[in-house]
Amino acid sequence: MKDNVKVGLLGLGTVGTGVVKMIQDHQEQLAHRVGCSVEVTKVLVKNVDKKRDVELSKESLTLDPYEVINDPDVDVIVEVMGGIDDTKKLLLDALNQKKHVVTANKDLVALYGSELLKAASENGCDFYYEASVAGGIPIIRGLADGLASDKIKTLMGIVNGTTNFILTKMNKEGMCYEAALKEAQDLGFAESDPTSDVEGLDAARKMAILARLAFSMNIELEDVDVSGISSVSDSDLKHGQTLGYTMKLIGYADQSDARAEVSVQPTFLSNDHPLASVNDEYNAVYVYGEAVGETMFYGPGAGSLPTATSIVSDLVAVITNMRLGVNGKSISAPQFEKQLKKPEEKFAKYFIRLHVRDEVGAFSELTKLFSANSISFEKILQLPLEEEGVAEIVIVTHKASMENYQKMQEQIKDLAVVRSIESFYRVEGEGAK
Amino acid sequence: MKDNVKVGLLGLGTVGTGVVKMIQDHQEQLAHRVGCSVEVTKVLVKNVDKKRDVELSKESLTLDPYEVINDPDVDVIVEVMGGIDDTKKLLLDALNQKKHVVTANKDLVALYGSELLKAASENGCDFYYEASVAGGIPIIRGLADGLASDKIKTLMGIVNGTTNFILTKMNKEGMCYEAALKEAQDLGFAESDPTSDVEGLDAARKMAILARLAFSMNIELEDVDVSGISSVSDSDLKHGQTLGYTMKLIGYADQSDARAEVSVQPTFLSNDHPLASVNDEYNAVYVYGEAVGETMFYGPGAGSLPTATSIVSDLVAVITNMRLGVNGKSISAPQFEKQLKKPEEKFAKYFIRLHVRDEVGAFSELTKLFSANSISFEKILQLPLEEEGVAEIVIVTHKASMENYQKMQEQIKDLAVVRSIESFYRVEGEGAK
Repeated sequence: MKDNVKVGLLGLGTVGTGVVKMIQDHQEQLAHRVGCSVEVTKVLVKNVDKKRDVELSKESLTLDPYEVINDPDVDVIVEVMGGIDDTKKLLLDALNQKKHVVTANKDLVALYGSELLKAASENGCDFYYEASVAGGIPIIRGLADGLASDKIKTLMGIVNGTTNFILTKMNKEGMCYEAALKEAQDLGFAESDPTSDVEGLDAARKMAILARLAFSMNIELEDVDVSGISSVSDSDLKHGQTLGYTMKLIGYADQSDARAEVSVQPTFLSNDHPLASVNDEYNAVYVYGEAVGETMFYGPGAGSLPTATSIVSDLVAVITNMRLGVNGKSISAPQFEKQLKKPEEKFAKYFIRLHVRDEVGAFSELTKLFSANSISFEKILQLPLEEEGVAEIVIVTHKASMENYQKMQEQIKDLAVVRSIESFYRVEGEGAK
Repeated sequence: MKDNVKVGLLGLGTVGTGVVKMIQDHQEQLAHRVGCSVEVTKVLVKNVDKKRDVELSKESLTLDPYEVINDPDVDVIVEVMGGIDDTKKLLLDALNQKKHVVTANKDLVALYGSELLKAASENGCDFYYEASVAGGIPIIRGLADGLASDKIKTLMGIVNGTTNFILTKMNKEGMCYEAALKEAQDLGFAESDPTSDVEGLDAARKMAILARLAFSMNIELEDVDVSGISSVSDSDLKHGQTLGYTMKLIGYADQSDARAEVSVQPTFLSNDHPLASVNDEYNAVYVYGEAVGETMFYGPGAGSLPTATSIVSDLVAVITNMRLGVNGKSISAPQFEKQLKKPEEKFAKYFIRLHVRDEVGAFSELTKLFSANSISFEKILQLPLEEEGVAEIVIVTHKASMENYQKMQEQIKDLAVVRSIESFYRVEGEGAK
């Protein structure tokens, strides 16, 4: 066993810089943990002359990824450059050259995680990806080791900091969506093109990774039903608050009878649910295990140093495995064949806001339609609107099947008393677990 | 490598029964994880004829612990019998016979963890104790692996479910301490002799274990300053609420400049601190790492199946290590020499409630005394009392040193205007981190 492990870094943006900093600043602590020194010796950059926050020799910087991948001295590749197809090819090449890989790339892991893990295992290499989900929160490890012996039934995550920041602003300060998005952009929490965050795609990638691990089933990105927060209105939030709910963009994964469902959607959480008080840009993952019951992991979902913490912890695991000679040994294929729930097997409560003609018999028409589809009401709120002759009705249903909801949604549009369906949200976190 | 790992169980109370159940019910999942079957073959009980919730052959039950420890077929000992000195001897004997040990015994780990870990390492055996702190929450693993690369600055825990249940009842329902304790006892959350819980000793043991791991320093039980909740009054809680605080029994561990402090004490937490909304019998551990920032692990602190989940996850780790031939290899001695903070190095805010004579100049006398000891005020609340001529004053200070607080506390008793000092609590969770 060598007494100096050499790391090749692909990418030197904010996270890459954080990784170099942590390795340099925590040298002594790392050496105590892994029994040898750790050094970043080759770094892929876009510009070798740029001034940087960390000290790296000029010779260690390169514009050519293969100078990192092919360097015979490099033991571990840390990938923080992003990208999908080219990056996948690079990492497969690295694994085939028996280099271990640590990545923070959720897009890549969501799409090609299984393939990369297989290649790693075949090469006797490690492939770790703690930083790809929820930045500094050790949730991958929590699922893989801490809750290893339990059967996970439900996993709910606030796994996108941008949307949580926006919803917190809307919820606590009564801002409208556009103003909250603008503030998130001004503070650097949202990109100038925020689509991937606000439409739920970023969260969907993370949920595919988490659900795959939690259910030991090959869940793919296209198995995740996605809807984002861009059409959430401040009146929705206000009515939700009246009824005791907080709106969050929730990644929801559930299995019963070996069938899974995974979705990302704006969801009204009961205020006493542990996730309801996760605010601002923070992330949290709530796990309901058959034996353990309710647990939650909370922390920063992004940022240079939090993400670097997860990467360096993965690096510690790789180097420990190197010293023990057991790299790649803990990778196991999914235990169960993928089976997804059909619409009639998915159950939830829903919050529905409608505008109806304020006339005799209106409510009874609604009631008839819901009962015809076996959906019953848990809460009802009726409010007059400014417009004469129109009332606003908010309904929270008891649990019913997706199949019945879909039928009801088809039919309700045709009711003469219904002027418009304003919104339709899942409700979670209360009632029988 | 054998294709059937045999477990010897010391104790078959609620947790032991949970362990047997989980191993039996999750047989298939366990086999997939560790590549072999797992079986409980010898069990120490108090009465072999007692009717039980789990199926175990009569031959597997024994009244003699050495029939478990000495059984040549047993690979791993799971200790859930409790006790200190006799149990320590048993586990040392087991380790010396090259049996791996998994324990849920916080008293034992708090007092003799270092000695047992050393014996395990010398024998090439594993010694795991996830279940000894915070039941089903994988916090030991979170600290040892997930946050391995970070420097942990502060760790705060709600690690005793009984006191958290009592304080939640007092806080949310305005109950007095005695009534809340009675309800906890009726529901089985508190023992008939609740001393160890309510006086903070149980939490102190867990904090010694957590601080040792977080700071890689040999913190001992006697290094923990302890005070309990039995003198917390409902008026304290009411005044705290007025000022935006929630009372919790907080285990506090902090290090700066390589010096540590560890305490357990009733603490006013700012309402927006993540621990403030951890209610009922739940536990949570908040960790502030230099790089990661704020994280929190939340879950059930006790209970048969949650605790069994942690034990079986430890068992999975032991068996994985067996298959890889690396047992005992990940045990490392503390990195740093123990150094504790002196009173002048401990800083905190405090909440002080006093009764003073309501006369001209009273407040200025108080002010003089606090300034003489370099303690400044952040919040002040003055209320009239029913008794004529007496006022109640609540002060929340800015951060000051323990040394200055102690001097002030000595001197304040002698002030002519002060009738009585009603309470004195640490305040955490707001202001500069």
